[in-house]
Amino acid sequence: MRNSTVGLGVVGLGMAGGAMVAAVGTHPGVRLVAAADPNQALRARFEAGEGLPAYADLDTLLADPAVDAVYLASPHQFHHQQALAAARAGKHIVVEKPMALALDECDQMIEAADRAGVALVVGHTHGFDPAVMLIRELVASGAYGTLSMIAQWNYTNFLYRPRRPEELDTARGGGILYNQIPHQVEIARTIAARPVRSVRATTAVLDPQRPTEGSCTAILEFEDNVSASMVYSGYDHYDTDELHGWIAEGGGPKNPSHGSARRALRQQEGEAERQARTENFGYGNWSAELPPHQPHFGELIVSCAKADIRCGADDVVVYTEAGVERVPIPARPWRPGRGDVLEELAGYLTDSRPLVHDGHFGRETLRVCLAIKQSAAEHRGLELIEREADSYV
Amino acid sequence: MRNSTVGLGVVGLGMAGGAMVAAVGTHPGVRLVAAADPNQALRARFEAGEGLPAYADLDTLLADPAVDAVYLASPHQFHHQQALAAARAGKHIVVEKPMALALDECDQMIEAADRAGVALVVGHTHGFDPAVMLIRELVASGAYGTLSMIAQWNYTNFLYRPRRPEELDTARGGGILYNQIPHQVEIARTIAARPVRSVRATTAVLDPQRPTEGSCTAILEFEDNVSASMVYSGYDHYDTDELHGWIAEGGGPKNPSHGSARRALRQQEGEAERQARTENFGYGNWSAELPPHQPHFGELIVSCAKADIRCGADDVVVYTEAGVERVPIPARPWRPGRGDVLEELAGYLTDSRPLVHDGHFGRETLRVCLAIKQSAAEHRGLELIEREADSYV
Ligand SMILES: NC(=O)c1ccc[n+]([C@@H]2O[C@H](COP(=O)([O-])OP(=O)(O)OC[C@H]3O[C@@H](n4cnc5c(N)ncnc54)[C@H](O)[C@@H]3O)[C@@H](O)[C@H]2O)c1
Ligand SMILES: NC(=O)c1ccc[n+]([C@@H]2O[C@H](COP(=O)([O-])OP(=O)(O)OC[C@H]3O[C@@H](n4cnc5c(N)ncnc54)[C@H](O)[C@@H]3O)[C@@H](O)[C@H]2O)c1
Repeated sequence: MRNSTVGLGVVGLGMAGGAMVAAVGTHPGVRLVAAADPNQALRARFEAGEGLPAYADLDTLLADPAVDAVYLASPHQFHHQQALAAARAGKHIVVEKPMALALDECDQMIEAADRAGVALVVGHTHGFDPAVMLIRELVASGAYGTLSMIAQWNYTNFLYRPRRPEELDTARGGGILYNQIPHQVEIARTIAARPVRSVRATTAVLDPQRPTEGSCTAILEFEDNVSASMVYSGYDHYDTDELHGWIAEGGGPKNPSHGSARRALRQQEGEAERQARTENFGYGNWSAELPPHQPHFGELIVSCAKADIRCGADDVVVYTEAGVERVPIPARPWRPGRGDVLEELAGYLTDSRPLVHDGHFGRETLRVCLAIKQSAAEHRGLELIEREADSYV
Repeated sequence: MRNSTVGLGVVGLGMAGGAMVAAVGTHPGVRLVAAADPNQALRARFEAGEGLPAYADLDTLLADPAVDAVYLASPHQFHHQQALAAARAGKHIVVEKPMALALDECDQMIEAADRAGVALVVGHTHGFDPAVMLIRELVASGAYGTLSMIAQWNYTNFLYRPRRPEELDTARGGGILYNQIPHQVEIARTIAARPVRSVRATTAVLDPQRPTEGSCTAILEFEDNVSASMVYSGYDHYDTDELHGWIAEGGGPKNPSHGSARRALRQQEGEAERQARTENFGYGNWSAELPPHQPHFGELIVSCAKADIRCGADDVVVYTEAGVERVPIPARPWRPGRGDVLEELAGYLTDSRPLVHDGHFGRETLRVCLAIKQSAAEHRGLELIEREADSYV
């Protein structure tokens, strides 16, 4: 079907970059060709592990003719300028969430990609998960009647994994609003498949040592009276994977270990925390093997007039008047989630399939996240009327 | 400690009345003395079962000198006038939720009880559950730091149990907003222990055969940035008791039977449904034995700065940095929940302990439920500033 593969350059070899390298190996339509990262240790690891060049800066990677597309997995604050540079160089772009830190930056990225005629895909988020895509299709089929409620709970240790300083500073894109809530928002948007009309949220900053948002409750109201409620806590107390048979977010097994991230962090201060971030999560920590179960993002229950649909660890469970039906998640040959990002890019480039998670989609997710932030700060609901949006920056 | 018991007359021998009769037998401070119900079959059952008088009307019961207090478990529309009559007769009052259908009715009930110098308790709701009271105390102790989020999910078959016509008509107090949401609101209010400041909600009416609200998502924002999120569905698809080890709401065992209420209802139309309501749930269907587990109302997770607290089937589970601690729920000699309502009444009457769930508390719950209804209808958030309240009627 496809007569060529897409040469991918990975920009940033940290956690996201490392996970993507593992995913590329599983996707037949994309081949890894290079990486770029200022961190010398990671570059050395990559060159040794992959036998491919790792450059110290983006410009050198963009000058490499083997690179057809870049995956921007650098810290948030670089996404905007790096996307503009990639577009100028005529490279297709996959940019990690959040797409950027402000809506006008997103606008410039969309415009630059359009002008250069390159693809712009925003991801990975858990909105790409095969289970979420299956639920979207089940809902869209109409077999279960009108969509009504989407409910999400996710309790994790997010705030106590080793962090870069900017990850703990909301003004620089830190905390859950820029890092975790985009997953819940895109899961909801993917299933709702219609515009968000209003937002009400509360957020909390509960640890003065990690002074950024660590928990959030929100309701998104979509068109047609469809609503999504989302609860997130990254405070490493309860862990909703207990409700998911102790399957981890990525689909691998997980040890029940309430509070262990916080306890471990007590041993790592300052520079040690920064180093642990790279050592424990960066390139080299990701197995190329496919996970035994499906990725997920906490608990998810979707209600239609004639069914509730719950996302399971291996399948999607549909509860109707007739009883319980388990719908298997269609198997993919690639790593679910990140491999689906690559599939979207490859499908667009080689089969001309339309992009779903394009710049407009990514911008809208940021808009919703910024509205969540503003709603919580102002203790009131916000209407989300397009173009008034820019006031949320 | 106590030198007398309270003579209780049960008004309405349906589901709530039947459950209360079973509870009275377990509480040493209250003794059942009579009942009133227009339904002759239920009266005959009660007289045969209890060896006590069952009157056809309230006035006769109010004239019985053995009656110190009444438990008003008649349909909602009678609560207001019956409470006024009981106050006039100098009887103490326990009135089921919802206290009444409008806030001005609540005001009149509060005033009448004050004037007559009788107690007015509103309940039962699951806010009385021992687990909820224990969580309230754990939070109030300060041991776990600032309270932040209260999250509730409840998926039940509420709308497909056999129903009286008015229970399916919102204008007459039907649907979940008057019948189930008060439980979630009181659980949240009991734990938050501070005023609700604003409300945002969405509701849905998904079955034209049962044209009243069957599902709801809501956020209550309390003072001090404490928030409660609540999801409820009564559409008999998913059942959150699956997450609770298949323990039923009352604490007894439960058969996994997704969709069975809907299927059963197909066999009962019109008069058959009305009859099934009484036959299956009214007086005589409630065992005097204490349930093996604790009552609960779906899943409940409470987040403080230093712990998440989850309500279990037998204990309250506290997740902190140190790990997982199970806090046993203090045993009561009486039926948990409804017995705790009686304990509040008896404690007030014989030990002068202050009432918590008094008329003001019950009125506030109705106010929040009406605000939920209005917020959903208007697709926007509502501030809840006291005294503007009356505009929510
Ligand atoms: N979708 C997901 O599930 C997911 C998961 C993790 C991270 N992310 C996203 O990926 C991005 C990176 O996060 P991370 O967790 O991998 O961080 P990280 O700290 O683990 O890795 C960032 C890497 O970028 C490198 N870097 C720094 N400046 C750079 C620059 N100017 N050019 C190129 N590389 C540079 C760093 O040396 C580091 O190796 C963030 O935007 C984050 O939101 C997404
Ligand atoms: N707290 C709870 O968990 C809970 C549970 C069920 C019901 N309730 C409340 O209890 C009340 C009754 O609900 P139910 O489910 O028991 O209904 P039901 O239909 O099972 O019972 C109502 C009973 O009241 C009788 N009745 C009708 N008119 C009366 C009157 N004027 N005076 C006295 N009795 C009269 C009926 O004959 C019937 O037996 C409602 O307000 C409901 O919200 C609370």
